[in-house]
Amino acid sequence: MKLIKLNATVTASNDRDAEELRKKLKEKGTLLINLMSSAGSGKTTLLSRVIRDLPELKIGVMEADIESEVDAQRIEALGAKAVQVHTSGMCHMDAGMTAAAVEAIGAEDMDLLFLENVGNLICPAEYDTGAGKKLMILSVPEGDDKPLKYPLMFAESDALAVTKIDALPYFDFDMDKCIERVKKLNPAIEIFPVSAKTGEGMEALEGWIKDALNEWRN
Amino acid sequence: MKLIKLNATVTASNDRDAEELRKKLKEKGTLLINLMSSAGSGKTTLLSRVIRDLPELKIGVMEADIESEVDAQRIEALGAKAVQVHTSGMCHMDAGMTAAAVEAIGAEDMDLLFLENVGNLICPAEYDTGAGKKLMILSVPEGDDKPLKYPLMFAESDALAVTKIDALPYFDFDMDKCIERVKKLNPAIEIFPVSAKTGEGMEALEGWIKDALNEWRN
Repeated sequence: MKLIKLNATVTASNDRDAEELRKKLKEKGTLLINLMSSAGSGKTTLLSRVIRDLPELKIGVMEADIESEVDAQRIEALGAKAVQVHTSGMCHMDAGMTAAAVEAIGAEDMDLLFLENVGNLICPAEYDTGAGKKLMILSVPEGDDKPLKYPLMFAESDALAVTKIDALPYFDFDMDKCIERVKKLNPAIEIFPVSAKTGEGMEALEGWIKDALNEWRN
Repeated sequence: MKLIKLNATVTASNDRDAEELRKKLKEKGTLLINLMSSAGSGKTTLLSRVIRDLPELKIGVMEADIESEVDAQRIEALGAKAVQVHTSGMCHMDAGMTAAAVEAIGAEDMDLLFLENVGNLICPAEYDTGAGKKLMILSVPEGDDKPLKYPLMFAESDALAVTKIDALPYFDFDMDKCIERVKKLNPAIEIFPVSAKTGEGMEALEGWIKDALNEWRN
């Protein structure tokens, strides 16, 4: 079947593009973080908080969506640099698309670049974008069973932010069970329960981001 | 580019398979409803409520997931017939996969068959599964901006259930704005704000399901 062969070629060439982008960003000292989650888990709200909390860092955000510019507008309103990427219906970003977005935002003097990937728990996990770190979000209303159903993204990520913990009293979400399921898939992952609304837990997550940047530059 | 040509072939053959399945189910008087939403929007909870509320109908559920059997187990615990489909990493169900699942569940004497599609707002909207109706779910915690970002699924669906309305006081979700955005994409869509937890709005949604079944059989 030709389809499989073509997919293999596309993936191999994507991996090469990803390595090239990673090397280029490493030389500049810019850390690219691939932020992945389902739609509506609060990626843009979390980023808005990080941008406000870390004024000492120069942060850029690349917003990938099927359509609309609402997320990039929200980020720009905070004074950060943002570009909106439309994926022509594609459910994920690949390394070539990411490299084009990095070019468009002009990463020359950035400390941190966030790629806000297309919102779904499946396809973005399958593509190396060239990022130095992968951070995923699971929001409390989505449920503690998601690691059972979408294991790849949890297995592939360096850190997990469990967001909207201010809503814990209204949902049947077992944090211990969730953490146990995630750690079983990925013992090395770092997990941060946070609320971008109240600020709870954000300092620990921001500490992880700053440590990752220092490590990237050494 | 060969890839595009191959995709076109796959889609055309999928459309043929879908028409064939739809015709077969129409002859049997079984209505297949393709239930689509993001991960964690409450598809299984909604279906559990529908099964409990409509004991006069024989209902089967086909649960499509990347991994795990938790959803099929929940449905079976209610005494309904269920099959679990694992999609080998695929982010959507196509008509061939759906036909195989219909075969496996044994649709001979069913009134209603629900296909609980893989949880994401993008890929499932692109494939005709052979269903007679498409019902999509948007849950309140996901946000009222989703029609702007994932227009295709809203444009393609016959009805939309806005779920978890019991959580409205805790989230910044503007129902009027959401409805306006959805109607702009799809003026004919029927919209049902519901809570499967409290039962609010379920009667109207279940009325739509029963009407759709009657219409299917006439």
